Amino acid sequence: MSHTPASKTLSSRRAQLPEPSLRRLPWYLAFLTTLRHEHVEHVSSTRIAAEVGVEASQIAKDLSFLDIRGKTRIGYEVAALETALRSFLGFNEAHNGIVVGVGSLGSALMADRGLQRYGLDIVAGFDINPALRGTLVSARPVYGMERMAEIVRTWDVSIAAVTVPVENAQAVADIIMDAGIRAIWNFTPCRIRVREGVAVQNTSIYSHLAVMYNRLDNSPKP
Amino acid sequence: MSHTPASKTLSSRRAQLPEPSLRRLPWYLAFLTTLRHEHVEHVSSTRIAAEVGVEASQIAKDLSFLDIRGKTRIGYEVAALETALRSFLGFNEAHNGIVVGVGSLGSALMADRGLQRYGLDIVAGFDINPALRGTLVSARPVYGMERMAEIVRTWDVSIAAVTVPVENAQAVADIIMDAGIRAIWNFTPCRIRVREGVAVQNTSIYSHLAVMYNRLDNSPKP
Repeated sequence: MSHTPASKTLSSRRAQLPEPSLRRLPWYLAFLTTLRHEHVEHVSSTRIAAEVGVEASQIAKDLSFLDIRGKTRIGYEVAALETALRSFLGFNEAHNGIVVGVGSLGSALMADRGLQRYGLDIVAGFDINPALRGTLVSARPVYGMERMAEIVRTWDVSIAAVTVPVENAQAVADIIMDAGIRAIWNFTPCRIRVREGVAVQNTSIYSHLAVMYNRLDNSPKP
Repeated sequence: MSHTPASKTLSSRRAQLPEPSLRRLPWYLAFLTTLRHEHVEHVSSTRIAAEVGVEASQIAKDLSFLDIRGKTRIGYEVAALETALRSFLGFNEAHNGIVVGVGSLGSALMADRGLQRYGLDIVAGFDINPALRGTLVSARPVYGMERMAEIVRTWDVSIAAVTVPVENAQAVADIIMDAGIRAIWNFTPCRIRVREGVAVQNTSIYSHLAVMYNRLDNSPKP
């Protein structure tokens, strides 16, 4: 059983959370946001379970890592649990990020103000195309790759989104790691090799298309 | 053992492929694209294995679902395997899609011409905001929700990307299914409930941020 005295810091409590639990927390947060918009004040883990398709006992276990307790027969307070989840997930912190590869997906990420609501502020873009240097994309400057280490130091950048063509992904990841960045958000289908202590998260949206096409093929026509 | 006579159609071969294999194929494709750019002509499953971090025997098994064979000691022909993978994954077909929720992420998807290279053409956007109706986003029209069924019929739309605020996701998914769409690409962290025969693919990019923040916290500082 986990046990989370209030004295423990947020990041040490986070460190204890298994990654599958971490991946479920945003689902609970999404449902709580919906409930708040419907002016619902309390919710039981059973109700959350029915909505997100996870066992109520698992939900209670996942939420036990947060510094918040439900009350018998009343359940969790919606607003308090929503706030606790946002904070636990790091969405209330300010992380600086860069986008490497200012093509259509890269520009899109630089334009997406939704990222800020989830704790990520894109401070600059980088591209090998000289024509893009010195331009602004969604009010953020675009630099050549040789400026990366300097910008990373100046802005204390911790995360780099990789949105270059797949054949350049590994070379770009190496430049990013040389610049001192310790988290790579990889939007390409390339399996990037990282050094020890560097985190990589794959969000290969085009690969997801293949899965969808396949399911479309296999599902019976109505 | 799988067995794939040439007489079988692409979609029946695809139907036999287990989903974990399907999820790996884009990794192989990414590596082949890189090799082609480096003018490499042949590649063995051992070489692919070293690059993508999957056992060579598993790669051979995954590729056996395609109508293509490697040659002893020479391996696979890079260009031919790349073409076969693109075609098998459905990236050479034309699928029409819509974006529901023309906010920052939705507009970004409408602007992302990369989707077309992977077989998805976004033909229109939909939004509840009356101010957006009749406008163009990246040269694609934006409609009110009440026009969805008509546009879906006219353009034979098969996929809808959901990029609305999380609290509206389920209601919007219901409208999408009513309009006759059978594949939902869900960019919200909401666990959307779908009817039988409707496929859903979750690409919750903001949830991935939480995982990255956590790994950053837990990785030793250099």
